[in-house]
Amino acid sequence: MTRSGVVHVIGIGPGERSLMTPRACEILARCEVIVGYSGYLALIADLTAGKDTYALPLGEEVGRARLALDQARRGRTVGVVSSGDPGIYGMAGVVLELLEGLPEADRPEVLVVPGLSAVNAAAALLGAPLGHDFAVISLSDLLTPWELIEKRLSAAAAADFVVVLLNPKSRQRTWQLGRACDLILCQRAGETPVGIVRNAYRPEQAVEVTTLGQLPAAAVDMFTTVIVGNSQTRCFQSRLVTPRGIVRSP
Amino acid sequence: MTRSGVVHVIGIGPGERSLMTPRACEILARCEVIVGYSGYLALIADLTAGKDTYALPLGEEVGRARLALDQARRGRTVGVVSSGDPGIYGMAGVVLELLEGLPEADRPEVLVVPGLSAVNAAAALLGAPLGHDFAVISLSDLLTPWELIEKRLSAAAAADFVVVLLNPKSRQRTWQLGRACDLILCQRAGETPVGIVRNAYRPEQAVEVTTLGQLPAAAVDMFTTVIVGNSQTRCFQSRLVTPRGIVRSP
Repeated sequence: MTRSGVVHVIGIGPGERSLMTPRACEILARCEVIVGYSGYLALIADLTAGKDTYALPLGEEVGRARLALDQARRGRTVGVVSSGDPGIYGMAGVVLELLEGLPEADRPEVLVVPGLSAVNAAAALLGAPLGHDFAVISLSDLLTPWELIEKRLSAAAAADFVVVLLNPKSRQRTWQLGRACDLILCQRAGETPVGIVRNAYRPEQAVEVTTLGQLPAAAVDMFTTVIVGNSQTRCFQSRLVTPRGIVRSP
Repeated sequence: MTRSGVVHVIGIGPGERSLMTPRACEILARCEVIVGYSGYLALIADLTAGKDTYALPLGEEVGRARLALDQARRGRTVGVVSSGDPGIYGMAGVVLELLEGLPEADRPEVLVVPGLSAVNAAAALLGAPLGHDFAVISLSDLLTPWELIEKRLSAAAAADFVVVLLNPKSRQRTWQLGRACDLILCQRAGETPVGIVRNAYRPEQAVEVTTLGQLPAAAVDMFTTVIVGNSQTRCFQSRLVTPRGIVRSP
């Protein structure tokens, strides 16, 4: 029987300190052990000074979650640092899945601290693209069959959802965004406004507005969030607005 | 020609102060005029002391946006306070739509400050239900034809999205949630895990886990967010986990 600690899976938001919640800061301060991807830990180095810090490379999500749970099973208070919101495609799921695999008597407490996700950040910088129903789809087919991603893209387009595309491109993933555009174009006009946000709230931030027809040619990488408007979305002064009907209603 | 001010549309998050970003606090402090729904203004009364404050009743979204733009056109710095994230079904769209209607020379600057939405908050309290692609659908048919909402529910269910239901019920809106469940049940098992979060991060917070089959009988109101798992979502220790495939991958 081990003395049981706690794992806090902490969302630090897009990166800019003013968008990290006080709760995330307070809980980080309370943690004895910090685990995270080295790139994110660098953003909060001043908040973790003097703590046992484990910086693991990108791609080692399972290793980070396992390390955090091991430390908590020794009775320690552990913080797993996640950029954005750990609940949205983030570390919360990885930690909970591994927790499920542990013997019941040996499971530390796991708590999730929400943060601003890339979805919230990109939407704010674009104005109000998410004023109505939307679907969030990752274009990464590393762990998800591409056929399922296609099915989701077509369904979201057919039902006139605003579509948020995460992980639209990487060095290895080059053709998926073009194919996604083709699928959405089957159901939506080429003039549909599209917002492209790269490195939201970071020093290299870039916000661009284009159209669905032009999207495949746009500068997009793995730090980019793409928001494709629905049939009602308007572009105005380089912003996107998806009306909910409030302004026009009698 | 008027001296042009600024409207900041400020997300204060779910209500609990520790989840409001420092940026939202700083910008509120800088505003001379504050406009908002009286219920939300009460949550931040200490931050708005001494400012010109306009508290308008619920339902007067257009009135609030118009008032804010009018004040900004007189050269003032105005904050429109929105609960959650103003970009997700929030005040950002209403303000930008009205801005679009103003003569170009007379448009104040409008900036959106993101906040934690009900989506982020409910997900964190439930564990990791949004670990994979998801669709957000409001069940309010006040301004959206019910046929379109049905189309979106069926499309999201058929493409195996996790489905987040906002505004699931109100005193007037009673049958919509049951109908939504029926539509999702056409494509998803009755045992599908469902999370119900009422008043997230507020004193009356309640978190419940049930199944899609049991959902119509659950206690749900207009302050509730419902998250319906996809075919892979598991329930475990009263939490929902939607795996992304990372843990099982070789």
